[in-house]
Amino acid sequence: MNGGFRAPSTGTVVKAVLFDVFGTVVDWRTGVAGAVREFASEHELALDPESFADSWRGRYVPSTARVRGGEREFVSLDVLHRENLEGTLAESGFDPNDFAPEVLDRLALAWHVLPPWPDSVAGIAELRRHYIVGPLSNGNTALLLDMAKAAGLPWDLILGSDVSRAYKPDPMAYRGPAAFLGIEPAEIMLVAAHPMDLTGARAAGLATAYVPRPAEYGEQSGHVAAPGGDWDVVATSITGLAARM
Amino acid sequence: MNGGFRAPSTGTVVKAVLFDVFGTVVDWRTGVAGAVREFASEHELALDPESFADSWRGRYVPSTARVRGGEREFVSLDVLHRENLEGTLAESGFDPNDFAPEVLDRLALAWHVLPPWPDSVAGIAELRRHYIVGPLSNGNTALLLDMAKAAGLPWDLILGSDVSRAYKPDPMAYRGPAAFLGIEPAEIMLVAAHPMDLTGARAAGLATAYVPRPAEYGEQSGHVAAPGGDWDVVATSITGLAARM
Repeated sequence: MNGGFRAPSTGTVVKAVLFDVFGTVVDWRTGVAGAVREFASEHELALDPESFADSWRGRYVPSTARVRGGEREFVSLDVLHRENLEGTLAESGFDPNDFAPEVLDRLALAWHVLPPWPDSVAGIAELRRHYIVGPLSNGNTALLLDMAKAAGLPWDLILGSDVSRAYKPDPMAYRGPAAFLGIEPAEIMLVAAHPMDLTGARAAGLATAYVPRPAEYGEQSGHVAAPGGDWDVVATSITGLAARM
Repeated sequence: MNGGFRAPSTGTVVKAVLFDVFGTVVDWRTGVAGAVREFASEHELALDPESFADSWRGRYVPSTARVRGGEREFVSLDVLHRENLEGTLAESGFDPNDFAPEVLDRLALAWHVLPPWPDSVAGIAELRRHYIVGPLSNGNTALLLDMAKAAGLPWDLILGSDVSRAYKPDPMAYRGPAAFLGIEPAEIMLVAAHPMDLTGARAAGLATAYVPRPAEYGEQSGHVAAPGGDWDVVATSITGLAARM
């Protein structure tokens, strides 16, 4: 890595490398399933923590889509995670009203403290030497801050979705950070494990790096990473990405 | 320092220690005068760099006051610094139109790269172990980001005045960050070298720490720090503050 990477798709030198977080930087499934396992054990509930985590996560895109589509005002991802927890409990055959609100509040905070993938901290630290590094996530600032402090993610700055008040793949979510950073959208590269996110970033004028995370849904999930696609960089880890830039 | 400091004025345990920046964390006068000296030498101008820096800084409070008072829409501190540079040049007997706009743009960026006081980096790093740390400055995010990267200021996050779109001592400037951090204003402590700033913070419900910087206007300025006042902590350095918390 020596800085000054020029993205083929934009012809522009990258100044900031911003990251999708859930699935790309952190292993949300292991972290959330761990908190769910503890909750289930404490309340003697028969449930599969990994499946519960998957169902909870499954409600995420539809819930942000209602904000993107203008069906409801912007609310933070903390609010959506808390609502979606009640939906997941109900779907799993439990009555959310059987639990004290504070207990569910605490469980919903599981999304604030998630383990990074093994290469995340080192890769971000390496990129930070030559680029601005930060999250470009649908997470709100407080969530991303708690996560960064717990996992030691060495961000230069954290601007959550509550700053731009837009959810990816809304173009405003990708373009919003540029004005705060004092740079152009084309000077930002989004790093993500999800082609849909990269497609949104590219449509908004950003450079793109694809870092597939085949273990996102568990080692045995049979989850197959999408093919490489026409992204500016494709790498199997963030340290690998750093080496290419 | 062992965390969990309870501020006498609020009776609340502090979770985030946020800093005024110009004068409190960085020595703006030395940094700006250095850039002005280079500019003057390049353009063969007879001026005193320190006095020029003082005049430029002198326009800062009146220019933010026009935004606070609603006389003009919010514009970033970068815009104000650039405008105030022209005013300072004119006041010093130079016609701003004698210089290429890009030359003045570049000089105005002097405020992005300023030397920290000797205790700043170590003190912030120490506080970061137990508290959220960040700037609470009238600087815009891009300015604070450039400054942090150049000086190695180990902030957890950077939310510039362009996020809250308010200038201290407007109460919104002090209260705005709390919502993004997911905490109450009383859980934030402002650290500042200027009693006016601390008075604003206290009026907005924050805890306060006074760290006078008698050399802000130069070692020989005869500038006398205001007396201690009734702040939650008074310390002579940020490392000293960290030791008290």
